[in-house]
Amino acid sequence: MSIAATELNDVPIFADPRDLRRAARSGGYDAYTIGQVPGYVHTNLCIVPEAYAFEFLSFCQRNPKPCPLLGMSAPGDPRLPGLAEDLDVRTDVPQYRVFRDGEMVEDVTDITDLWQDDFVAFAMGCSLSFEEPLIEAGLPLRHFDARADVPIYLTDIDCEPAGRFAGKMVVSMRPFKPVDAIRAIQITSRLPNVHGAPIHFGLPEAIGIDDVGVSWQCGTPDIREGEVPVFWACGVTPQVAVEAAKPPICITHRPSHMLVTDRKNAELSIL
Amino acid sequence: MSIAATELNDVPIFADPRDLRRAARSGGYDAYTIGQVPGYVHTNLCIVPEAYAFEFLSFCQRNPKPCPLLGMSAPGDPRLPGLAEDLDVRTDVPQYRVFRDGEMVEDVTDITDLWQDDFVAFAMGCSLSFEEPLIEAGLPLRHFDARADVPIYLTDIDCEPAGRFAGKMVVSMRPFKPVDAIRAIQITSRLPNVHGAPIHFGLPEAIGIDDVGVSWQCGTPDIREGEVPVFWACGVTPQVAVEAAKPPICITHRPSHMLVTDRKNAELSIL
Repeated sequence: MSIAATELNDVPIFADPRDLRRAARSGGYDAYTIGQVPGYVHTNLCIVPEAYAFEFLSFCQRNPKPCPLLGMSAPGDPRLPGLAEDLDVRTDVPQYRVFRDGEMVEDVTDITDLWQDDFVAFAMGCSLSFEEPLIEAGLPLRHFDARADVPIYLTDIDCEPAGRFAGKMVVSMRPFKPVDAIRAIQITSRLPNVHGAPIHFGLPEAIGIDDVGVSWQCGTPDIREGEVPVFWACGVTPQVAVEAAKPPICITHRPSHMLVTDRKNAELSIL
Repeated sequence: MSIAATELNDVPIFADPRDLRRAARSGGYDAYTIGQVPGYVHTNLCIVPEAYAFEFLSFCQRNPKPCPLLGMSAPGDPRLPGLAEDLDVRTDVPQYRVFRDGEMVEDVTDITDLWQDDFVAFAMGCSLSFEEPLIEAGLPLRHFDARADVPIYLTDIDCEPAGRFAGKMVVSMRPFKPVDAIRAIQITSRLPNVHGAPIHFGLPEAIGIDDVGVSWQCGTPDIREGEVPVFWACGVTPQVAVEAAKPPICITHRPSHMLVTDRKNAELSIL
C-alpha cells in the first residue's frame, strides 16, 4: 500500500511501545512518532540484502555519529530481540521508505510482501532520544514546540566509505541561544549511542550549507535573533549511502516515522 | 617595590611549584605563570580585610563560575595549607595588584609590608587549569601558541551581588573552529572548579561585547576565518567587584601572575 504524506496531526499518544507497534502492525497507526512513547528509544531503520550487510555494518562502524548501531537482525529474521520481544520489523514501523537500485520508489506502511529471506535489519539511534533530555532540562526546541519536523541538511562532510556505501553526512539542525547550546552539548555528549554531541554550530557554510534558511528535507528552519544553528549528525545519512551503494532493494523507515523499542532512553546515557 | 609591566619572556620553566614559589619569595621570579609548573593548579588570589571577608565569600558562593573558590585562609594567617604546605601568600605570587578604596594603585612583587592581622586570602580556580587539558586534547589555543596573554572582556552580565560586592562578569575569550569548540565545552564541563563550561559563544553582542576585535584587558584578540569566539567566566571578575565594594585595601594577583599550588589539575576533574 503506497500512501500520501501524513501531517503531524492529533493522534493518540501511546505510553507503551508495544501498543504503538501493535497499532502500526494492524494498520491503525501511520503517523510521526515524535512525542510518542515518552522515555522509550526510537530508532532509525535500514534493511539491506545479506550481500550488502557486511558493507553496511562496516559503514556504521566507521561512521558512529550518523549511524550509531543499537541492534541488527539475523539474516531473514524480522525480529530484533535485543530491542524488544514483541517486535516485527516488517509491520511495526508506521511508515517505510523503499529504495530500488538506490532510488526511492515509494513509502508504505507494511513490508511483509517485500520481505526477503536474506534481509538484514539495522536499527540505529535517533535524535528523538536526545531531544527528550533536552526538553526535560528546560531547553526550548523550536520544531518540537511548533509540532513540526526537525529541518535536515546535506553537508559537504564525507562519511568514511565502506565498500559500496559512501556519501556526505546529513545533519539535523536545532537553533539555540548560545547558553542553551552549551547545555545541549553537555547533555547530548552523554548520549553517544543516539548521535552524541553536535558535529558543528554557528558557521553553516563551513560544512557546506550555503543557506541555512532552506533545509534539504523535513522541517522548515526558524532561526531567531540571538540564536545560533546547532548541527547533529542525522540518521538519514545511511539513506544517502544507500543511494550510492544502489542495492537492488533497501528499505528504511520514512523520516520521523521511527521504529519504537522497549529500551529506555535513560539506559543509553553513559554518565 | 613597585615594578613596571613585565613581558612574557624567556624565563626558566619550573617543574615543581615549590621551586617557583621560593623563587618568587626571594625576588627571583616576577613573570607570568603561563606555562609554568605543568600539571599543577594556578589560582586567582583576592585578599580583603576581615570586615569584608564574609561578603566576599558570599559573592564567591553566589557566582561560582567566575569565582570558583579552592581555598581561603584564617584571618591574619598567610598560609593556605589546603593548597600547599610551603606557601606564604605574602611573598609567593610573582606580582600582586594593590587596590585602595576600590582603585588600583600599584603592582608589587611582595606584600609583607602591607600585610594586616585581619587579612583573609581567597584562592580561586583559574583558566590555566583548563587550558592544560585543552592543549593535551590537541585543541589549538591561539594566545598560548603566540606566547601571549588571553584577551578578556567586560560583559553586561550582572553577577549576583553580595553586600558591597557587585559588578559585571569578566570573561576570557578563546577562538575555535566549531568542532573544536564543542570538544572544548566537553572538556571544560568536567572542571567546574576552574570556571567550568563556557558561558557563551558566537554572539558577543548578546553579552554586551560590541566589538569582539578589541579586548578590555590583557591579550589581543585574533579570531580567524571559520572560527567562533568562545567565552569563559574569568577570575578577574572579583577585581571588578572590589572596585564596587571599595574596601580600604584589597590585594589580588596581577592578571596572569598566579599563585601556584601543590594541587594537581587532574585532581579537579569531576569525571
